[in-house]
Amino acid sequence: MKKFINDPKDVVTDYLIGLEAAHPDVVRFDAESRVLLRARPAFRKVALVAGGGSGCEPLHTGFVGHGMLDAVCPGAIFTSPVPRQIIAATEAVDAGVGIVHIVKNFTGEVMNFGMAQEIMAFEDITAETVLVKDDVSVPDDDSSAGRRGLGATVLVEKIAGAAAERGDAVEGVVSIARHVAARARTFSVGLTSCTPPERGQEIYAMADDEMDLGIGISGSPGRDRVPIAPAGDIAEILLDEVLADLRPDSGARVLAMLSGLGGTPESELYVLYGEVAARLRAAGLDPVRSLVGNLVTSLEQQGAALTVLELEGEMLALWDAPVHTQALRWGM
Amino acid sequence: MKKFINDPKDVVTDYLIGLEAAHPDVVRFDAESRVLLRARPAFRKVALVAGGGSGCEPLHTGFVGHGMLDAVCPGAIFTSPVPRQIIAATEAVDAGVGIVHIVKNFTGEVMNFGMAQEIMAFEDITAETVLVKDDVSVPDDDSSAGRRGLGATVLVEKIAGAAAERGDAVEGVVSIARHVAARARTFSVGLTSCTPPERGQEIYAMADDEMDLGIGISGSPGRDRVPIAPAGDIAEILLDEVLADLRPDSGARVLAMLSGLGGTPESELYVLYGEVAARLRAAGLDPVRSLVGNLVTSLEQQGAALTVLELEGEMLALWDAPVHTQALRWGM
Repeated sequence: MKKFINDPKDVVTDYLIGLEAAHPDVVRFDAESRVLLRARPAFRKVALVAGGGSGCEPLHTGFVGHGMLDAVCPGAIFTSPVPRQIIAATEAVDAGVGIVHIVKNFTGEVMNFGMAQEIMAFEDITAETVLVKDDVSVPDDDSSAGRRGLGATVLVEKIAGAAAERGDAVEGVVSIARHVAARARTFSVGLTSCTPPERGQEIYAMADDEMDLGIGISGSPGRDRVPIAPAGDIAEILLDEVLADLRPDSGARVLAMLSGLGGTPESELYVLYGEVAARLRAAGLDPVRSLVGNLVTSLEQQGAALTVLELEGEMLALWDAPVHTQALRWGM
Repeated sequence: MKKFINDPKDVVTDYLIGLEAAHPDVVRFDAESRVLLRARPAFRKVALVAGGGSGCEPLHTGFVGHGMLDAVCPGAIFTSPVPRQIIAATEAVDAGVGIVHIVKNFTGEVMNFGMAQEIMAFEDITAETVLVKDDVSVPDDDSSAGRRGLGATVLVEKIAGAAAERGDAVEGVVSIARHVAARARTFSVGLTSCTPPERGQEIYAMADDEMDLGIGISGSPGRDRVPIAPAGDIAEILLDEVLADLRPDSGARVLAMLSGLGGTPESELYVLYGEVAARLRAAGLDPVRSLVGNLVTSLEQQGAALTVLELEGEMLALWDAPVHTQALRWGM
């Protein structure tokens, strides 16, 4: 196994120690509660809390800081955080003016955030839930556990984080967060599988000329295994899937996010983004903002995920607002 | 071959088109001259120009913009730019107050920048050369082509870029650039090889339990092939090699940069950084700044490179100065 790790059981802890060591001005790791907090707690603002399986970094840990999240509870690799962690994260940042839980639509994550909220209700602590389910590879009906939460999570965290940072009330933060979640869609392509440290081997095998369409995160396989294609053709597939479901207004301003899955080099992501941007314009859309890089990953998996957000109302202004986290930083 | 590319011959062009599409406010790709320029040219400042083989992104193309480089001439994958490109890049940004060429110590790069300078001399255009050779895996003597330029290049570009941006004269920019180059050292470890697109297969083979110590970039093999070790042991090897050569003052403030080689996930880089930071402190050094991520890469190679810079004089203030490029952005 080719990884920079110590004992596979300690990989999440060792990662969080390293993250704090590199960014002591941004984050603080509370090892006892296993939560990651802002180095400088915010005062009297709506608290934003997220969490999920580790191995998807920078999601969510890389988005703690000014203008985004207040606390994150990271689970084990590809495993949801437990209710105790969620409660600890929430209580650590509750400033008494409202709490928002940003929850990706995975069974374990929804269940554990729900249980944490039930337990906290005994202490009269109420958190609002914003559910993210942007993965168009899964039908949006009752035939499954429903659409998974993928790249839109980053956009919800950034835009709602900016609303909270400027002092919006909890109703406003929840409203813009849900609006972003409703207007974003994602479709992903995987070129390889990945190797969870405690498993020690790849989750599944793929031939050198194959790619998986409609994968999720956490090493889950795709909807269709097809022959690998040129970047232009892949861009077309990603965009067709996303736009057919999003159905943006003609001429709409959009934010296009292209996330690598961890093992794809930046140069390839930009090759693919160039093809996406040209096709967005050809479709009569205006990609006024972009975000290209490793944002929602699955360890060292090679692949990419396209998220398109139709920018409505204040979304663009809130996107542009200052942010200072490990993974996103501008304006400060 | 698992890559997001179109025709392998077009991969550098397609990358640069995508980079401009994603960051039109930062860079402009001049396809005819094959150079990457700032979207908004700077006025009356010393011009900083760099270039090298492609496949190492974000080096150098990701560092064009306010506070860093003015122009970059990217060669083919793992191949130095040609003199014509270097001349075009230089002439495009020459504001008449001095030009600095930041050159990594590779035979082709040194030769082609030298030829470009000889040709420009006929037009009375003079560029100062700052040579970067920070790779301690190669002896610093005449037994070889000399030490390769690796991670220190990023630090030279950022710090000299800040000096140029605030209006320093060319002598001052060259002086601080050479000072940074002199006080930084790098040592790298590779876990896998990589696959150049036009070659279509890995450059060399490695067993699953092996790692290469003392590799360079461009897929060159390492000095020693040894069994893979825990992250703590790898951190110790990297740091021992770097510090034995750098010999910083006791208690010195240092900048520690840990660059992934392209295919290593961020979470592993932070695991390794945590081990590096603890050992830096144990060695009596003060890592006041860090930079962790994919900065100098070799396509999708898995591995990491540690660069340590002893921060002297104005280096820290210039490091902290605002920068707005694709790959580094803060303060604006």
